[in-house]
Amino acid sequence: MEPKIENIQSKSGKEKLRFIPLGGNGLVTKNMFVYESENDIVIIDCGMGFPEETMFGVDMVIPDINYLRDKKHKIRGILITHGHEDHIGALPFILPEINVPVFATRLTAGLINVRLKERDIQRMVKVNVINPGQKVSLGSFWAEAFRVSHSIPDSVGYALHTPLGTIIHTGDYKFDMTPVDEKPTDTAKLAELGRRGVLALMSDSLRSEKLGFTLSESLIEPKFEEAMEDAPGRVMVTTFSSNISRIKQAIEASRKFGRKVAIVGRSMESNLFVARDLGYIKFPPEILVRLENIEKIPPEKLTLIVAGSQAQSGSALTRIANGAHRFVSIRPGDLVIFSADPIPGHQDPVHTVVDNLTRLGARVIYSDITDEFHVSGHGAQAELMLMLNLTKPKYLVPISGMYRQMKKFVDLAANAGIEPRNAFILEEGDVLEFGSQGAKVDGQIETDNVMVDGLGVGDVGDVVLRDRRVLAEEGIVVVIVTVNRSNGQVVGEPDIVSRGFVYMKEAEPLISEMKELVQKAVPVGKKVSDWHFIREKIMENLEKFLFEKTQRRPMVLPVVVEV
Amino acid sequence: MEPKIENIQSKSGKEKLRFIPLGGNGLVTKNMFVYESENDIVIIDCGMGFPEETMFGVDMVIPDINYLRDKKHKIRGILITHGHEDHIGALPFILPEINVPVFATRLTAGLINVRLKERDIQRMVKVNVINPGQKVSLGSFWAEAFRVSHSIPDSVGYALHTPLGTIIHTGDYKFDMTPVDEKPTDTAKLAELGRRGVLALMSDSLRSEKLGFTLSESLIEPKFEEAMEDAPGRVMVTTFSSNISRIKQAIEASRKFGRKVAIVGRSMESNLFVARDLGYIKFPPEILVRLENIEKIPPEKLTLIVAGSQAQSGSALTRIANGAHRFVSIRPGDLVIFSADPIPGHQDPVHTVVDNLTRLGARVIYSDITDEFHVSGHGAQAELMLMLNLTKPKYLVPISGMYRQMKKFVDLAANAGIEPRNAFILEEGDVLEFGSQGAKVDGQIETDNVMVDGLGVGDVGDVVLRDRRVLAEEGIVVVIVTVNRSNGQVVGEPDIVSRGFVYMKEAEPLISEMKELVQKAVPVGKKVSDWHFIREKIMENLEKFLFEKTQRRPMVLPVVVEV
Repeated sequence: MEPKIENIQSKSGKEKLRFIPLGGNGLVTKNMFVYESENDIVIIDCGMGFPEETMFGVDMVIPDINYLRDKKHKIRGILITHGHEDHIGALPFILPEINVPVFATRLTAGLINVRLKERDIQRMVKVNVINPGQKVSLGSFWAEAFRVSHSIPDSVGYALHTPLGTIIHTGDYKFDMTPVDEKPTDTAKLAELGRRGVLALMSDSLRSEKLGFTLSESLIEPKFEEAMEDAPGRVMVTTFSSNISRIKQAIEASRKFGRKVAIVGRSMESNLFVARDLGYIKFPPEILVRLENIEKIPPEKLTLIVAGSQAQSGSALTRIANGAHRFVSIRPGDLVIFSADPIPGHQDPVHTVVDNLTRLGARVIYSDITDEFHVSGHGAQAELMLMLNLTKPKYLVPISGMYRQMKKFVDLAANAGIEPRNAFILEEGDVLEFGSQGAKVDGQIETDNVMVDGLGVGDVGDVVLRDRRVLAEEGIVVVIVTVNRSNGQVVGEPDIVSRGFVYMKEAEPLISEMKELVQKAVPVGKKVSDWHFIREKIMENLEKFLFEKTQRRPMVLPVVVEV
Repeated sequence: MEPKIENIQSKSGKEKLRFIPLGGNGLVTKNMFVYESENDIVIIDCGMGFPEETMFGVDMVIPDINYLRDKKHKIRGILITHGHEDHIGALPFILPEINVPVFATRLTAGLINVRLKERDIQRMVKVNVINPGQKVSLGSFWAEAFRVSHSIPDSVGYALHTPLGTIIHTGDYKFDMTPVDEKPTDTAKLAELGRRGVLALMSDSLRSEKLGFTLSESLIEPKFEEAMEDAPGRVMVTTFSSNISRIKQAIEASRKFGRKVAIVGRSMESNLFVARDLGYIKFPPEILVRLENIEKIPPEKLTLIVAGSQAQSGSALTRIANGAHRFVSIRPGDLVIFSADPIPGHQDPVHTVVDNLTRLGARVIYSDITDEFHVSGHGAQAELMLMLNLTKPKYLVPISGMYRQMKKFVDLAANAGIEPRNAFILEEGDVLEFGSQGAKVDGQIETDNVMVDGLGVGDVGDVVLRDRRVLAEEGIVVVIVTVNRSNGQVVGEPDIVSRGFVYMKEAEPLISEMKELVQKAVPVGKKVSDWHFIREKIMENLEKFLFEKTQRRPMVLPVVVEV
């Protein structure tokens, strides 16, 4: 039965709807958004985030679902907008705990299944494939996906029909008028929703700092063609492994100039094969060449599509740049094209990789030299205004941007008729409540950084991280005091070991002085009962002494061993 | 006596001249260059470098002068090009060991003296003030400073007249046709040198990736004026503390609109006062207002010039953005202008500061929004070509750039008549030798990272850094085994303490298993003589066990305590 939107309009006037970003806002990545009515919860996206620079040793962060733990019975499903890691990457960690139906378009579902398989939980979970236009009933909500263009095919936003009205949640989008998959953002649908009345627009805001329209993705292919025609040798294209449209264009251009294509990097290969198997990229199988065989192909007849555009350590490109890749080594005549801008935090490593590739003799094209080989997947200012003009929402909530970007969108929206009091900049955990009286921020739920480190999820907390920071900057000094259990007296002299502080072998005098200081802190020939006090005193004395001597503050760890 | 260049031309044809970058090349910062003949050494610049991201806890790096240690008697002097930290910052660390005359222009000398005073060594050292055009005799060399425009007044390059010919060492430069100090790069002098014959050009190459000419510094002042005229409240300008020309323009613009000026940040204040005392900036004293008194000034009549444009932790701007500055707190209506681009490695912290300032209600203008408030102090491609055209050198050596930038300059120079075999890309420690047969790279001297951490210079080495990296990523597990000295037998059970690995209080089972493993590695009831072997075994067993259990590799530190 096709639901009528009118049927789910508020009847009593007492309904409330809460919207809570558990990530995305203020961070861009780690996207997860909660829509909650009295009896139902619908979640949109479930992505991973990158660790902050000071989260040493942390592999990724995922949304904190603590708020949902006692509300699992209310959750009707998780709607996914597209297949990028920052929108799907936390599913393998969260689904085992909250096992609810997942809804995604076909390619997105394919990419999710790859991630679930990696963690061996694909059988636990059912990913429901939906099509744009299809309506999904989720308790008192109805959801309806609409197409948007982004840097990966099959991206959608959702119209969420709620008792209080329709909410449009865009996901990441741009208005690409000539997208590579020939499926532009569904302006007609957005206009229709706008005409019927939109309560609130939750919109991507990442590129609100940039004027005009973002360029079309399809402008890249002719640039690849020029480069491949002119290059005297191999062409290596590096981009995000998830940028299916870009990979498609690199393959198309190669084909045009009779170049074979080798894929370098596991994630890139698995994404490409999913897209090919589901029909999102078509190419004759013989165009692909296995890495083991690339030396048999004349250089001017070969393209390599290489993972690692952000110079991630251990990635294919970084290994190539370090001369440490098993199958690919750079030689003069090679052309390397960065078809991706460095994302925040990756500028330095990318520059190091460019330097190393240049040293090895490659010609390298990167974003400091030209902007011809990359366009963003996000809409700029004019596109955000177009979205507002189409949907005509009562309320605006920028999502998936840093604070400055969400604020900028709100400032721009003021010129498009959205009064500042109807626009809300929400940070992670902020609760926006819609009721018959309108919308207001109604407090904040507590959220933590949930960190994944190796096999541990959430077991690295603030204490461990704080210790890692001190250890990183200043090292550690371990002081071992041995005590006779029977009489409580100290046995022998203290042992001192340090790591990451000074080079021990050259610090003999410093260590002797430390030993003396420790001995002074421990009463000789007396039974000690309060070791806690003595430990504190050792720490205090040594920290003060070491700071005076070296202006450094290593972690001092006194250990009392009873024998 | 005015030296005649002809008098120092090679007579025997046997002279050799060696050029060795001890920094600068491949790094941009840490500039220090050695020119060496048989009997004489002349050094140009002596700057500090920023630690790499993985040099945890390191405050700065300085050039490794090991090569110079047994050649001190040959060193005739250190010529300084300008007063930026990456050209003067290592002097306080290196002069105590190599106490030779320092030559610098007046403002540069003033800034050097501030640094020497901070380390209390100003009396040891004589900084000789020189003027552009003045010739300085340095053993068999003559040096002659010529004006260049850069982002700090009183910048010079040096013509070094050697027995083998004249070398032009540019220092950092641009061809600013309308510089703020009205002293453009001395094109006439460069042309004259070129006419007489230049053996080699050692040229700044940092901006070789950029087309055309860098814009003039003096374009900034009208932009400051517009902003100050329009702003309804306080205007805060942040830039590099050493950018005297920029600070000058901010003060000039404030004066025009009747704004008082407060300086926020110690380094900015001390640089400004040196420049004022030496006559490089003139302003009526009453325009300055002390920080304690800013609340008495109406907001629209106040400009704050704030240190911390790179969001350095602890800087004035970072503290303001964190709401933690003693005198300055942000209020709605404040305008903050970033008059500096983020340098590599600082994009993320700058964005965080922008977000925080925006959150507090400020309007913030920064480089993602506009490029109107910053220009570079370095010349772009057309300027590098102009330098080549003026000086017509036989050999070209790009300096003070990353590898890719030096390579780019060499590629460009090929179009300006410098044959690739006459252009040399040198990395740190590479030795370029000039002789009667021409120039060639003649091996490489070994250089180390000399790191400054607190009071220690050079005592943090690779071992300590490697330990800090492991500690940062994975933490440490200390295992203490107590042994009876008289019978060599283990006493009691092992103690295990960890930091930065897992939260100890929640890891009881893991710790019990670790204790069991350690006990298995230690033979019970037997006298152990080879404790080295046992320690290795404990490490190996625990590392393997912990990796299997957690996929992490903490540092395992077994300590055997004898009682």
